[in-house]
Amino acid sequence: MSLLVTGSIGIDTVTTPYGVSENCLGGSSVYFSMAASFFTPVRLLGVIGLDCPFDLAEVFAGRDVDLTGLEVRPQSKTFRWKGTYHDNMNDRRTDYLELNVLAEAPPEVPGAYRDSKYVFLANTAPALQIQLLQQVQDPVFAAADTMDCWIKDELDDLKRLLKKTDCLIINDGEARMLADEHNLIKAAEKILDMGPTVVIIKKGESGSMVCKGSGERFILPAYPTAEVKDPTGAGDSFAGGFMGYLAQVGKTDFDSLKTAVAYGTVAASFTIADFSLTGLSSISKSDIDGRFETLRKLTHF
Amino acid sequence: MSLLVTGSIGIDTVTTPYGVSENCLGGSSVYFSMAASFFTPVRLLGVIGLDCPFDLAEVFAGRDVDLTGLEVRPQSKTFRWKGTYHDNMNDRRTDYLELNVLAEAPPEVPGAYRDSKYVFLANTAPALQIQLLQQVQDPVFAAADTMDCWIKDELDDLKRLLKKTDCLIINDGEARMLADEHNLIKAAEKILDMGPTVVIIKKGESGSMVCKGSGERFILPAYPTAEVKDPTGAGDSFAGGFMGYLAQVGKTDFDSLKTAVAYGTVAASFTIADFSLTGLSSISKSDIDGRFETLRKLTHF
Repeated sequence: MSLLVTGSIGIDTVTTPYGVSENCLGGSSVYFSMAASFFTPVRLLGVIGLDCPFDLAEVFAGRDVDLTGLEVRPQSKTFRWKGTYHDNMNDRRTDYLELNVLAEAPPEVPGAYRDSKYVFLANTAPALQIQLLQQVQDPVFAAADTMDCWIKDELDDLKRLLKKTDCLIINDGEARMLADEHNLIKAAEKILDMGPTVVIIKKGESGSMVCKGSGERFILPAYPTAEVKDPTGAGDSFAGGFMGYLAQVGKTDFDSLKTAVAYGTVAASFTIADFSLTGLSSISKSDIDGRFETLRKLTHF
Repeated sequence: MSLLVTGSIGIDTVTTPYGVSENCLGGSSVYFSMAASFFTPVRLLGVIGLDCPFDLAEVFAGRDVDLTGLEVRPQSKTFRWKGTYHDNMNDRRTDYLELNVLAEAPPEVPGAYRDSKYVFLANTAPALQIQLLQQVQDPVFAAADTMDCWIKDELDDLKRLLKKTDCLIINDGEARMLADEHNLIKAAEKILDMGPTVVIIKKGESGSMVCKGSGERFILPAYPTAEVKDPTGAGDSFAGGFMGYLAQVGKTDFDSLKTAVAYGTVAASFTIADFSLTGLSSISKSDIDGRFETLRKLTHF
């Protein structure tokens, strides 16, 4: 089934203990699309300025990523982010942030995208996420990401968004903040009460948890990897693998959600093994399936 | 098969956000024995002073816990610990510690215990752990716990211990410290190189990881529970469920290790649900088996 992602396209400079990657391609919609394209065709919605040095058609060559929704604004500049990861790779510092085109009006969802059935609203102001979602006629499964600043400053908008989305994908710290509850099981239950039927809490190297309103629960560790060079894009790759699989099978029953989370976990494990998109773009679907089977073997008893 | 535990018996005062438990029964060998007794007979080795207000025969009434190795020293005082857990239940502060009888010579392993096949050496000075293990004639599977102070101050002894034990059970922070390596996969591999054939790394609410020298790996999340009243004894209950199951089946192949870790995880989940031993002592084997099946369902995809 059709899968739409709305999110950022960025020029990133990332420093980790393994090196520096200067002015490389980044952004939530890019990581998401790369991961999801292993499973299903993707429709990308995003905006760049004329300064963007990357040809996305080339980046996604050989993959079924529809760039009808890629808007280039001649008067604008592309989003830029510079960040540093510290030794333990869990904490990162934003060295600078230029919102540029992201501070302007969001792109319109093109007519050809409006029948999308699966929708991922990557992190941005919740009011914009609502505005984007409203342009999709009849979504089957809409998932959203968010972050601490919106929980703090735009909570009413975020709560309105949660009433309109089927799934919230959020990290553990943000879940605790949104629910005002330290225990993650209780936090997930409180978030389910806010509207979505599915909450996925990402816990970094501790894996993830899926909670469905009906009382169904699933917990999966992260894929254990000795190679973590650059965690940037892990969350969006996770979402890409997750939504890509769901759109591929066209089902959102609990068994499908569990398989989808395992594929998301695997996609993220490839992303963090190298800088920018290299970890994801250098592999094939059979690498993903191989690691999926390994993850199953690692966790079953 | 016979299972011996050597460890502390203590009088604990524990404060958590859920309340205070004053002068309650604690100690590694007590939590371990309670958890392991659901699976197999246990031989307890430990020392108390005459001041100990607890009748361990009564505590373990109806359970197959052999107290031949319980030594009461009339001139000594029982080990005491007072600690406080903070809001997130992960960090704890030791308010005071009276080693008392634990600062004296360790107990001798009684003749009737010397043929024990499964041995758990709870946390103490590694030189003492070696001394205790040497009194067991022909152990099949010996596991040890340790902690940061021994890694820092008694590393040579600890390394000697690791050459004599089959399994080290250690938490994530200690594993990183011992291996001088942040990545836990690499840390486990470095610890395996120090001697044991099995390393189990406990990651608190993030679960645990089993690494065997032969390249076999297993990862299990913690049992997701909304009730965490007192984390004291979680690690020793985990070890008790783990070793208890292994001694019960008399096997240490990788499938048995995986099942054993799942039982350890379940035992720990009951311990933390209430103060002192209440969480563990108030349940039956069928509660453990029920949660074991739930854990399987929660993690399989």
